[in-house]
Amino acid sequence: LIKQLRAIVGDAHVLVDADLRAPYETDWTRRFHGPASCVVRPASTDEVAAVVRACAAAGAPMVVQGGNTGLVGGGVPGGGEVLVSLTRLTRLEPVDDVAAQVTAGAGVTLEKLHQHARAAGLDFGVDLAARSAATVGGLVATNAGGIRVLRYGSMRAQVTGLEAVLADGTIVSRLTGLAKDNTGYDLTHLLTGSEGTLAIITRVRLRLVPLLPARAVALVALADTDAALALLATARDGLPTLSAAEVFYADGLRLVREHAGLPAPFSEPYPVYVVLECAARTDPTDALLETLAASDAVVDATVASDATGRTRLWTFRETHTEAISAAGVPVKLDVCVPLRALPSLVRDLPATITAVSPAARPIVFGHLAEGNLHVNVLGAEDVSTEVTDAVLRLVAAHHGSVSSEHGIGRAKVAWLGLSRSPVEIATMRRIKDSLDPAGLLNPGVLLPSGSSGAAR
Amino acid sequence: LIKQLRAIVGDAHVLVDADLRAPYETDWTRRFHGPASCVVRPASTDEVAAVVRACAAAGAPMVVQGGNTGLVGGGVPGGGEVLVSLTRLTRLEPVDDVAAQVTAGAGVTLEKLHQHARAAGLDFGVDLAARSAATVGGLVATNAGGIRVLRYGSMRAQVTGLEAVLADGTIVSRLTGLAKDNTGYDLTHLLTGSEGTLAIITRVRLRLVPLLPARAVALVALADTDAALALLATARDGLPTLSAAEVFYADGLRLVREHAGLPAPFSEPYPVYVVLECAARTDPTDALLETLAASDAVVDATVASDATGRTRLWTFRETHTEAISAAGVPVKLDVCVPLRALPSLVRDLPATITAVSPAARPIVFGHLAEGNLHVNVLGAEDVSTEVTDAVLRLVAAHHGSVSSEHGIGRAKVAWLGLSRSPVEIATMRRIKDSLDPAGLLNPGVLLPSGSSGAAR
Repeated sequence: LIKQLRAIVGDAHVLVDADLRAPYETDWTRRFHGPASCVVRPASTDEVAAVVRACAAAGAPMVVQGGNTGLVGGGVPGGGEVLVSLTRLTRLEPVDDVAAQVTAGAGVTLEKLHQHARAAGLDFGVDLAARSAATVGGLVATNAGGIRVLRYGSMRAQVTGLEAVLADGTIVSRLTGLAKDNTGYDLTHLLTGSEGTLAIITRVRLRLVPLLPARAVALVALADTDAALALLATARDGLPTLSAAEVFYADGLRLVREHAGLPAPFSEPYPVYVVLECAARTDPTDALLETLAASDAVVDATVASDATGRTRLWTFRETHTEAISAAGVPVKLDVCVPLRALPSLVRDLPATITAVSPAARPIVFGHLAEGNLHVNVLGAEDVSTEVTDAVLRLVAAHHGSVSSEHGIGRAKVAWLGLSRSPVEIATMRRIKDSLDPAGLLNPGVLLPSGSSGAAR
Repeated sequence: LIKQLRAIVGDAHVLVDADLRAPYETDWTRRFHGPASCVVRPASTDEVAAVVRACAAAGAPMVVQGGNTGLVGGGVPGGGEVLVSLTRLTRLEPVDDVAAQVTAGAGVTLEKLHQHARAAGLDFGVDLAARSAATVGGLVATNAGGIRVLRYGSMRAQVTGLEAVLADGTIVSRLTGLAKDNTGYDLTHLLTGSEGTLAIITRVRLRLVPLLPARAVALVALADTDAALALLATARDGLPTLSAAEVFYADGLRLVREHAGLPAPFSEPYPVYVVLECAARTDPTDALLETLAASDAVVDATVASDATGRTRLWTFRETHTEAISAAGVPVKLDVCVPLRALPSLVRDLPATITAVSPAARPIVFGHLAEGNLHVNVLGAEDVSTEVTDAVLRLVAAHHGSVSSEHGIGRAKVAWLGLSRSPVEIATMRRIKDSLDPAGLLNPGVLLPSGSSGAAR
């Protein structure tokens, strides 16, 4: 097989030595790692198709990897798979300015996509902190979210078509980017968020949004999560230009400030902080200030309209992931509850976690408008399963999702049943078996291994 | 089976007599009709599930019907099926004003949904002319579009969850309406637009949008489709409140005026007309007028801000379907092309049609922003297959879709291959077979009959 793979992609792009494989075999959080039989780096859809055909003929399972910025172990080997890295699929076509769309290879980074869209006077609707390494293929395969979902939706809402290689090596291609197309099952939507278990996405057609040069950011201090939701309601109602609403808490701010050596944003600490961003063609600062003045929920606030000031305020929120990683190997959870359940979840979390692990240090932050919290627990590495179980059961009791934007990967397979019914899981298995009967694509990711193909 | 069905839904809701069945057996365009073995009218998801289990046990194929306003014969029998009518699933739950969502039974009409949302100070993002009869179940099953897709997207973009009965009578239910939920394959998106071939949708969870009371409508006269696209670009750029952009042509206006006895909108006729609507919290009339004044493409225009005037302008566009139906039984096509291909398609259509049928009278109108044209051909009933074939081949040559928003139904099955590749169709068949192995749900709709189950 190695010989065949070398013939397809060239000797330099089949990595067999342990040293060369290593960067691909561990995720960046250092929580997930496994040996690959080799790493293969195709440079085109046709090469991916040939790789898949060779692996299928050899009965060799594959794991698919983009920028390796995933947080649930979905892109690292379980053990012994051929690791298909898509980072060489970097072709970025010219922006179609009539349709306001662009076609990008799976290996194009989010940052490159942003630069490309902006050079054409447009913008891309999804943004997140891992932008310099995260690839569009991975973002689509995991239906990534990020900080602008409030305005533009998740990756799913940006994808107008895609090209992918099925488990038998055939290619489905749908890149015309039609605004409406009701001609049968929407394979694009089925593959979006399927985490590489149904096909390998090699190219995507993406919707672009207007470039909004005028931005204003507010960092707002509040008494509690209820007050944050009241502010959100006021902002959504009064600010059509609202494009982000992020929440974090006192202990997260303290950790970020220690890690990055930042001054305090306010003269005294407060329990809850919300970052609001408005984006428009003309300066939205006045409207933002008026909305803040009109909200009874605001305890203190600081607003920045210039680029430096905006970055300074965003840093308090965006440094959370990095500061937490620097403090240890966290148990990382990413949950979503109906908005009205959010205050209750935030209230119940600390006791739920310390009941399992008294010394644990939970840091919570997230995307307020979607009820999406990133729950990071430091000092609980040795009881990570127990902490995960306790938090996710609490989330399920609030009718929430055990994975809001990170996906299931390997990390959450055991808890899938908290969010999906046995009928839903059985239905997913049927679909998986119909498209990948031998279970060669990302085995052990999303669905329990042994659930597909011969094992049934 | 009839006896079992009567036990499930009550004698009054199993219609066996030909007279009682008749209204369900023909679509409203009078182009599609077929006999049902009986019509069964369940009133709840549990009743639908029991009906499906009884039919599955008897090996009886089913056809699913909502408001019977479909345009491609997807809701009428091919011959001998049990027709499952969902119009009694009319439960409409209170609006969740924190999440801005609502849960509705499949049989709730679009009009009832609008009234319900507006009573709660919100609105629903999809609107179309058949609103008084079209049901939300059918709208989701066909991923309906309509006149506000420009602003809010198609039905797919409104659906945050659904409940459905699978071919074996089991129920999948996902009605929490979480804003983000990456826990495996998105069955909601798979079922949306699947035209009742994978499951019977019984309830849907829908996103609501802000109620925008201030509206302004312009009817604009232009020289050609290129000018219409230029106006669209100017309007999209300058009017964040733009919520509709519809196009029609001189011959359509003439037919509408004759049918409805309407006065001319302008002192002289023009080749192309575009309806623009802006919707906002505060009066968008001035911004609309400024945009029209700034556009070189505008030849003449009339603007209305009051309800009566707005309705008067919309009537020219919205009466098209009714006026065409009154003039005969049209060949109805619903196509979509990349925006930059639209002028060329409009130019080539008449000659393509008259080459097949010299006396045919094509009437074209549609949704400008999506490149979505409704092509209606009068006087070609006897050569409908040939006209359909010629038009859809022309569309395919423009890299377009043979069904933009109506779906495939029975009408377009033969042309599915113009828009979907053999690999895509084979993939759809695999999915169909995995969820409905006996091929009992809507046989002959969307995929050719005999493609699933025992026939393979």
